[in-house]
Amino acid sequence: MLRIAVLGCGRIGRMHAENIHAHPRAELAGVFDVVEAAAKEVAANLSVKQFASADDIFSANEVDAVLVATSTPTHADFIEAAVTAGKPCLCEKPIDLSVARVKACASAIAGTTVPIMLGFVRRFDKGHAAVRAAIEAGQIGDVHQVVITSRDPDIAPDAYIEVSGGIFRDMTIHDFDMARFIMGEEFETISAVGARLVAPALMERCDDYDTVTVTMTTASGKQCVISNSRRAVYGYDQRVEAFGTGGMAISENHPENNARLYGGAYTDQKAPLLNFFIERYAQAFASEIDAFVDAVENAAPPAVGFDDGHKALLLAEAALISVREGRPVHLKEVE
Amino acid sequence: MLRIAVLGCGRIGRMHAENIHAHPRAELAGVFDVVEAAAKEVAANLSVKQFASADDIFSANEVDAVLVATSTPTHADFIEAAVTAGKPCLCEKPIDLSVARVKACASAIAGTTVPIMLGFVRRFDKGHAAVRAAIEAGQIGDVHQVVITSRDPDIAPDAYIEVSGGIFRDMTIHDFDMARFIMGEEFETISAVGARLVAPALMERCDDYDTVTVTMTTASGKQCVISNSRRAVYGYDQRVEAFGTGGMAISENHPENNARLYGGAYTDQKAPLLNFFIERYAQAFASEIDAFVDAVENAAPPAVGFDDGHKALLLAEAALISVREGRPVHLKEVE
Amino acid sequence: MLRIAVLGCGRIGRMHAENIHAHPRAELAGVFDVVEAAAKEVAANLSVKQFASADDIFSANEVDAVLVATSTPTHADFIEAAVTAGKPCLCEKPIDLSVARVKACASAIAGTTVPIMLGFVRRFDKGHAAVRAAIEAGQIGDVHQVVITSRDPDIAPDAYIEVSGGIFRDMTIHDFDMARFIMGEEFETISAVGARLVAPALMERCDDYDTVTVTMTTASGKQCVISNSRRAVYGYDQRVEAFGTGGMAISENHPENNARLYGGAYTDQKAPLLNFFIERYAQAFASEIDAFVDAVENAAPPAVGFDDGHKALLLAEAALISVREGRPVHLKEVE
Amino acid sequence: MLRIAVLGCGRIGRMHAENIHAHPRAELAGVFDVVEAAAKEVAANLSVKQFASADDIFSANEVDAVLVATSTPTHADFIEAAVTAGKPCLCEKPIDLSVARVKACASAIAGTTVPIMLGFVRRFDKGHAAVRAAIEAGQIGDVHQVVITSRDPDIAPDAYIEVSGGIFRDMTIHDFDMARFIMGEEFETISAVGARLVAPALMERCDDYDTVTVTMTTASGKQCVISNSRRAVYGYDQRVEAFGTGGMAISENHPENNARLYGGAYTDQKAPLLNFFIERYAQAFASEIDAFVDAVENAAPPAVGFDDGHKALLLAEAALISVREGRPVHLKEVE
Repeated sequence: MLRIAVLGCGRIGRMHAENIHAHPRAELAGVFDVVEAAAKEVAANLSVKQFASADDIFSANEVDAVLVATSTPTHADFIEAAVTAGKPCLCEKPIDLSVARVKACASAIAGTTVPIMLGFVRRFDKGHAAVRAAIEAGQIGDVHQVVITSRDPDIAPDAYIEVSGGIFRDMTIHDFDMARFIMGEEFETISAVGARLVAPALMERCDDYDTVTVTMTTASGKQCVISNSRRAVYGYDQRVEAFGTGGMAISENHPENNARLYGGAYTDQKAPLLNFFIERYAQAFASEIDAFVDAVENAAPPAVGFDDGHKALLLAEAALISVREGRPVHLKEVE
Repeated sequence: MLRIAVLGCGRIGRMHAENIHAHPRAELAGVFDVVEAAAKEVAANLSVKQFASADDIFSANEVDAVLVATSTPTHADFIEAAVTAGKPCLCEKPIDLSVARVKACASAIAGTTVPIMLGFVRRFDKGHAAVRAAIEAGQIGDVHQVVITSRDPDIAPDAYIEVSGGIFRDMTIHDFDMARFIMGEEFETISAVGARLVAPALMERCDDYDTVTVTMTTASGKQCVISNSRRAVYGYDQRVEAFGTGGMAISENHPENNARLYGGAYTDQKAPLLNFFIERYAQAFASEIDAFVDAVENAAPPAVGFDDGHKALLLAEAALISVREGRPVHLKEVE
Repeated sequence: MLRIAVLGCGRIGRMHAENIHAHPRAELAGVFDVVEAAAKEVAANLSVKQFASADDIFSANEVDAVLVATSTPTHADFIEAAVTAGKPCLCEKPIDLSVARVKACASAIAGTTVPIMLGFVRRFDKGHAAVRAAIEAGQIGDVHQVVITSRDPDIAPDAYIEVSGGIFRDMTIHDFDMARFIMGEEFETISAVGARLVAPALMERCDDYDTVTVTMTTASGKQCVISNSRRAVYGYDQRVEAFGTGGMAISENHPENNARLYGGAYTDQKAPLLNFFIERYAQAFASEIDAFVDAVENAAPPAVGFDDGHKALLLAEAALISVREGRPVHLKEVE
Repeated sequence: MLRIAVLGCGRIGRMHAENIHAHPRAELAGVFDVVEAAAKEVAANLSVKQFASADDIFSANEVDAVLVATSTPTHADFIEAAVTAGKPCLCEKPIDLSVARVKACASAIAGTTVPIMLGFVRRFDKGHAAVRAAIEAGQIGDVHQVVITSRDPDIAPDAYIEVSGGIFRDMTIHDFDMARFIMGEEFETISAVGARLVAPALMERCDDYDTVTVTMTTASGKQCVISNSRRAVYGYDQRVEAFGTGGMAISENHPENNARLYGGAYTDQKAPLLNFFIERYAQAFASEIDAFVDAVENAAPPAVGFDDGHKALLLAEAALISVREGRPVHLKEVE
């Protein structure tokens, strides 16, 4: 049994804690949150220890590994602390909003053998993973175009948006990772357009965008398109398409249930899409814990590493330059 | 060019006339209808001859073959006339509402080499035909269960229902033929239940049913179910499912177009189903003409023969006995 | 927290134990199995008590309620014991293979206020439940026809089949319950055909059937069809269709993931269906525990009661008479 | 009856001739092709006159209107001839490969009341049109993103590609028109990437691309993406998605038939997509003739005008500059 402690008891932290609690090869070693009440509730519900500080977790003998689900500005510090403590770490994305801080963190942990895994949970979705598996099995040949559609069911509260780091670092970052995962090749150029159509005043105030389209190309000319919107009234729109020389694979959306309705004016109507990521990616979050336990148990490199978090952030950085300067950006400009 | 004359210029006759007119290897040799105005209009629109009588058609040298789309009571007579005249005949279903009349007709034309084809148009639907083709290609192994759903968009006018011969002879007869086509084996027993749920008063008056479920078995125990209703508000529901040892094949419905709509309360909504048979089976009606021309040109037995019309009627007869007497009926009781 | 003990630590019992363990308002009070090793493993994995006997569970103060997942012949006894002990009970289906025993059990517990819930888990599937919800919301009007397709991915081992009580009591019984749930009205007549196509020798030996089609009608003439097979190579085929005056609702199958594959010879191909009930109905099994906890907490009648188990068994009994005697059976013959 | 003559008896011309022949309110007034044998065959098959020259058609009293399906370099000349002759004209796209020639043609016919309709046939596809209709009915609110996928089943012969004018003017031009049709607003900027992945040597020789991704924005920031490939092994991939504040509408692909296949390793598999445009857009080509006849009969402006052809070509021109210069292009640069 891998004894994992959870740092951060917000909505995502709680879910991770429950998944660890339910996992057959892991146990929840305890929780911590700067908001004591939050940690207390989770600890009580799952009958586990509430740690007094993050430091206590990193120094506890009864903790084998940590899951970091705290606020973004703490991620890089906790990754460094985990490496220092020799405790494998599964850290929520992003590593940091600042490329400089991520680079510093990379230097700080360079050469470590402590497994550091990044929480790009979508890689563990069975549908998205099946697209990648089809590619690896040669079922669709060489991939020429990847099309990712990713739209939130609704825009987050103003307070969240204001500190989010902007749509590219906060939302598209998942799609940048998915693009790399599916394409299996690094991107070289990026070109983005952004608009303020969903919440113009808020976006104006934050110098941010709520509706973006991003195009990326690899050195060999392969293409990827990402379509984002902060609001899709029909639910959380999450689709991935890979088009290749031998065929195509598409990971489709997840409606709330599998029923279809027919009436006088329509046929084949499904329910709205599962809303939001905790529901839509429930299977993926559970599988992510599984992959982390696997990596630690087998002393294998995690499925998603620190470098993946770094590279996704560079794409976000380049996208932001592109939309602001109205030109394609070469990735080497930001590396 | 096969010169085909059309007897009957009602809705179906007109459609057949247009399909013949548009067919690359056939030409419309003329039309006839006892309602002169109906024939006149079709003849004018398509610039063809209006014959003065059915006899004129059967004796005309410039007519190579005939298509019979007149009222049911005339079908058997015209089939016999076609055989006598040596003119290949494509006749709308059913041959007759009376089993005795069909048997007499069978005797009358016994041994003829004149191609007589029955208008069980659904066999020519690309989807239904693909189910049969999958079976013949061995893709789903031995067929164990066939499930046919067949619901009209709305009940026909009272006047039509009153002379229709009842739901089994008028509507289910298509499904009986489809069941034989898909199963590729004759049925031995039939068991039917019927209800008056759509138009109870009319059904009561006609001693008919508007909602029926029929189960048939072959000698080897294979099973077929047919579900019929005279009214499906979402359109013309036409589905065929074949379940076998190696898999399953399903021919799905046809919505009016291929668009899908997403809104705040639903996703993936399609349009109502194509409504009614002229629209839904447009491709099949055109392919049926094609198959008829093929059969005549190649002096080959038509894809659907007189015997198929006969056998479907026997199933209808047996179903009626079953529902009235509340017991399974063995086909030999009606043969 | 409702403290639930689990009797029976086979595959289903283990799954229930894990679901209780993971449930936010329940806790696993302990387990028991006549096979000690089975109980020991579950107890160890989930860190709970292993009871020495069923009696110990029924007399334990720290047990608020019980879940019975033992072999069928013990179900009725444990239900009676639960009532005597005043412990709410969620019992796997069927109550018993013998109608007489079920009737005796019904008498024994008559008038009890202890909640007894039957494990017809499919009612809790979000898709099937959405069909029922659409009916209750009036979205499809009066239901005229219900079509249930239920095919296992593969036939169970001989040893299981031999003591299963036959396909109607073992497999179709779920569909009988589903039919009552969806139709919302009792059935009056039943007519079944059965064949031995999947495993003829085994079926012959057990005087059982592996491929059946069942038709049922209500007093008002509404119709339900059930199609069963013991082997569907493409996976666990579980579909429910309700056709009504205002529309139709269909609960569709669940493929292993939501990806679709396109190749040179095909498009839109999905993965095989989830296989088997533990995977397919994972959500439903979890929701079932939820419904049980709700019922106990609110002192409300369970969503599925003892009577539902009783009625489903009567339908199974009648179906068996129908297929053996080759005639429709009126339910009053078996009540 | 509108008497329409067809100029050009290649594959598309023949199809148009047949559609006119079959149209209830039109008749085929004759045909012409510089390849006499081609015209002769069509004339014989459909029993119509073979004109000796295009001039003969423009001066013939028995010709009310013309359909131009000749090679691209003749289009602008014939449009001018039609205007001079006062004969309504339905002209295949593109008007010309040269923006200068199109502008000259626009000047030459400026102010004419003779209906000139451009053959952007996809607007008449029932699925694509349903997307536009949903927008106009307000069903999906304000459109924020349009996603068009358009991939040919296979690359055209070298000889065709060499004179095609390049992928943007030859293939994407349809998608540019579709983008304008669906968005209902003009685009202001365009950004394109292109690659040589399908037929690198040929593309290199022609200085052309076989795989492109195009992003366009309107003045208000709305976005459109087009994904093109010259080869999709699964068939002719033609999808249109409109995402708006109130929902989304998607026009889906058309498989060869509506059957779905299930086997041991897959479920729900459809046939390859209809291949190629004559099959996929058969309904649209017939409806296009209908719209042309309507426009002429009602003296109404055609659904697709000369200006639509002009604007689509400007988008193609701008896309080409963008991909060559590696920068976004403002449409005013090419107007």
